[in-house]
Amino acid sequence: MGGRAGFSLGQIAAALGAALDGDGARVVTAVAPLASAGPADISFVTDGRYLKDARASRAGAFLAPLDIGELPAPALRCRAPRVALAQLLGMFHPAPPATAGVHPTAVVAPEARVHPTASIAALAVVAAGAVIGARARLFPLVYVGENAEVGEESVLYPSVVIRDGVRIGRRVVIHPGAVIGADGFGYAFDGTAHRKIPQVGGVVIEDDVEIGANATVDRAMLGQTVVRHGAKIDNLVQVGHNVEIGEHSVLAAQTGVAGSTRIGRYVVMGGQVGIGDHLTVGDGAQLAAQAGIIADVAAGERLWGMPARPVVQAKRIAIAAVELPELLRRVRAIDRRLRRLEARLGMEGDDRPAS
Amino acid sequence: MGGRAGFSLGQIAAALGAALDGDGARVVTAVAPLASAGPADISFVTDGRYLKDARASRAGAFLAPLDIGELPAPALRCRAPRVALAQLLGMFHPAPPATAGVHPTAVVAPEARVHPTASIAALAVVAAGAVIGARARLFPLVYVGENAEVGEESVLYPSVVIRDGVRIGRRVVIHPGAVIGADGFGYAFDGTAHRKIPQVGGVVIEDDVEIGANATVDRAMLGQTVVRHGAKIDNLVQVGHNVEIGEHSVLAAQTGVAGSTRIGRYVVMGGQVGIGDHLTVGDGAQLAAQAGIIADVAAGERLWGMPARPVVQAKRIAIAAVELPELLRRVRAIDRRLRRLEARLGMEGDDRPAS
Amino acid sequence: MGGRAGFSLGQIAAALGAALDGDGARVVTAVAPLASAGPADISFVTDGRYLKDARASRAGAFLAPLDIGELPAPALRCRAPRVALAQLLGMFHPAPPATAGVHPTAVVAPEARVHPTASIAALAVVAAGAVIGARARLFPLVYVGENAEVGEESVLYPSVVIRDGVRIGRRVVIHPGAVIGADGFGYAFDGTAHRKIPQVGGVVIEDDVEIGANATVDRAMLGQTVVRHGAKIDNLVQVGHNVEIGEHSVLAAQTGVAGSTRIGRYVVMGGQVGIGDHLTVGDGAQLAAQAGIIADVAAGERLWGMPARPVVQAKRIAIAAVELPELLRRVRAIDRRLRRLEARLGMEGDDRPAS
Repeated sequence: MGGRAGFSLGQIAAALGAALDGDGARVVTAVAPLASAGPADISFVTDGRYLKDARASRAGAFLAPLDIGELPAPALRCRAPRVALAQLLGMFHPAPPATAGVHPTAVVAPEARVHPTASIAALAVVAAGAVIGARARLFPLVYVGENAEVGEESVLYPSVVIRDGVRIGRRVVIHPGAVIGADGFGYAFDGTAHRKIPQVGGVVIEDDVEIGANATVDRAMLGQTVVRHGAKIDNLVQVGHNVEIGEHSVLAAQTGVAGSTRIGRYVVMGGQVGIGDHLTVGDGAQLAAQAGIIADVAAGERLWGMPARPVVQAKRIAIAAVELPELLRRVRAIDRRLRRLEARLGMEGDDRPAS
Repeated sequence: MGGRAGFSLGQIAAALGAALDGDGARVVTAVAPLASAGPADISFVTDGRYLKDARASRAGAFLAPLDIGELPAPALRCRAPRVALAQLLGMFHPAPPATAGVHPTAVVAPEARVHPTASIAALAVVAAGAVIGARARLFPLVYVGENAEVGEESVLYPSVVIRDGVRIGRRVVIHPGAVIGADGFGYAFDGTAHRKIPQVGGVVIEDDVEIGANATVDRAMLGQTVVRHGAKIDNLVQVGHNVEIGEHSVLAAQTGVAGSTRIGRYVVMGGQVGIGDHLTVGDGAQLAAQAGIIADVAAGERLWGMPARPVVQAKRIAIAAVELPELLRRVRAIDRRLRRLEARLGMEGDDRPAS
Repeated sequence: MGGRAGFSLGQIAAALGAALDGDGARVVTAVAPLASAGPADISFVTDGRYLKDARASRAGAFLAPLDIGELPAPALRCRAPRVALAQLLGMFHPAPPATAGVHPTAVVAPEARVHPTASIAALAVVAAGAVIGARARLFPLVYVGENAEVGEESVLYPSVVIRDGVRIGRRVVIHPGAVIGADGFGYAFDGTAHRKIPQVGGVVIEDDVEIGANATVDRAMLGQTVVRHGAKIDNLVQVGHNVEIGEHSVLAAQTGVAGSTRIGRYVVMGGQVGIGDHLTVGDGAQLAAQAGIIADVAAGERLWGMPARPVVQAKRIAIAAVELPELLRRVRAIDRRLRRLEARLGMEGDDRPAS
């Protein structure tokens, strides 16, 4: 009945709300990609482009879109096959249960409040005044600073650092080595040296956010740096002080957002995007990988390049740039031909040669 | 008298050396931004651009430049309002005192020397031969390797790693997860594989340097990688082996400096700048975000783009690039018109068409 | 006889297989760069470009290429001087021996298997089912997750995180703070929110790989992310889920490789390179620093720029771009001159002015 023994296609169809096309009693014991799946596996075709690969697959069953063509094994047809795949993988790979309680080698300040159902692993540190919610899980070597809060069912992987006063919502996942609440990068130049501007604000991470390995989210100078509900932040991303990341926005790896910039909702960024400080990026904007954002971005805009421009324009420029060296030669030749014509017609000197 | 009870405007004026314009007995209890400040707060106008916002603010007092216009509450006028703001925030948010001594769960080698006023928190590790100076503070889970030195009043936040032999000066602040002294990236290709060149040099971090969360400063192959007095390095920055960062230079987040490059004094870099190896960047140079530096940079130069060019030139090129696709069409049309003229005048073939 | 007492030039010549040009009995006690070497040091000239510096050096001996000119002190001539330098540094700076055994403050699950010759330092954590091979070395504060494997003689520096099920080969070196096996960045958008796609695959790091400080290598969604034999990955690099990095490829700092991309063998990447998802980079390709790869790359290609183009083409475009603003003016002037000629010949209107 569990993951090890497998599930019948009927069970899976019921769990995913899928239309089953085949024998509901057939049992599959694992999820596997099309190329490596065998008769005991269920595989997936999230998109018609993979139909050919599916037809060559030896999988015992398929998760597939509603409108897919014929398949060589029973199919579970779903309206949203990627969402169904997420569910399917969760069925076969349930999160391992954490043992509630505090490991004897963890260092939990007496003034901290740890919910009895929370799991605090070996060598984790929870400082005075910190609050750890129900069923929250701290892996080994995690640090939670003074008065910080970690909400229900949130998971902090090994070596995560949550500095003092940071508030982490519910069902938040923070991957290893991420640092939440380090000082923002703020200085006042006194004519000789950079004097540190104390960073006395905080960070709020709302519910259902995920933050990647070794990512950094700085605390505000005053007020709060905020990552809103459902936003997803990949590895090695930098979020500067006083930034706001809107609900359900997605930032791919190594992207950086400079201080006080506001990112709207449902914004999508590729990897290595850079966004300047004090800017606004509107809802639903899409910023391609390595885009350099140096001005506000309107809602729904799709930008690419450095400096970032509308994708269609940026592509046209990139294509035209290839012809630029030849264009220079061509214009020089045109200039010569024109001078010859002007000479023939006695029109020299009417216009300065454009050199 | 302390932060909780607040300060009178007279006290603040005296501490900041500010000219007070209003009632010196008025007490403020917190520092707040213009938009959220209330009558018990002091806010700040670091720049005339915020005058309108200041006039709409309900703040009980303002820190302001000398020449600012009229404000709706008492003003403390300063020559350098950002520097004064740094001081003001320090008054209201004094750094919490650390408890001197070694936490019982810290692992300090008997051969290490820890000053009795230093604070070594839970689960920190100090290896043999390491020296921790007076009033230095190691947060939990910090590692200080063999024979490394941490100077007076320096602060190492949680999960910082200082490898063996690294020398950290006084009043240095290193944010969580930063790694100082990992091996430089050096190999010799033997025709089949990359053979590691042992990285047997060290790292010197001079006084008053700040290094951001998850930043990395590599040890030298031989000799030292050096970050000079007062330099400020943001999160996720990479400093390669044998690099020298000059005094009071500022590197914003995700910038990378490749091996053996020398950065002068008072250089300022935006985020995600990349600088090649074995280059020299002169004093006071300014490198805009995402700049790609592939050649030496003269003192005082201001560069932008990839490849980096003088800012004025790079902006002209970026503006002109928008017209490039149209320019290609236009030159083709000119060529046609010219050929027609040449045909009319019997001058065809005098010049190869520049195609 | 050891590093402290130094080596005779005869000993060094024998160890490196070098031809000695001078007195084999002379003893040198350290390796130093040309500029700072003294008479008791051996220095190195890996390349004829440094001959002038070598002639000015006070070094007591030199490592040099076979065909170098005359030097002011005995020379050890080698076919591959950089490889010899790697060996020479290893002679003078042998890796310090680690103490076999488990430090009493380490937390090793009873169900883990730790080879008796392995070294598990203070406050390291080894979870249930993990296997640590012979002579492997875990520095303090390292985490090795459930069922992960660390091969013989591999070194995990402080604060490295190896998540569950990851397989690390032999003689692998992982620098501080690197995270291997964090979840890949995969979501299914359900129309409102991003639903996490469980990342249930693993990571395989083959033998002789080196991974830099704070780098991240994500686990696969299904199957494995693979870093093949001898590959070298620098600090702060991101390797996405299901990526394959080929044998002996080199990725400089802050480079990012997006999901499911395959990098061939002997590929070389400069710093801050970005490579899109589901791409293929052929064997021996060379990608210059900050290159942006948005399409497959053929074997042996050398690319530069964003978007990346063949180096020769990209350089021509970069040089031509400087003339672009002037070119626009010139073409406008040409258009005016042409219109005047057309007017003189009564040919106006034959062609639409290309504006």
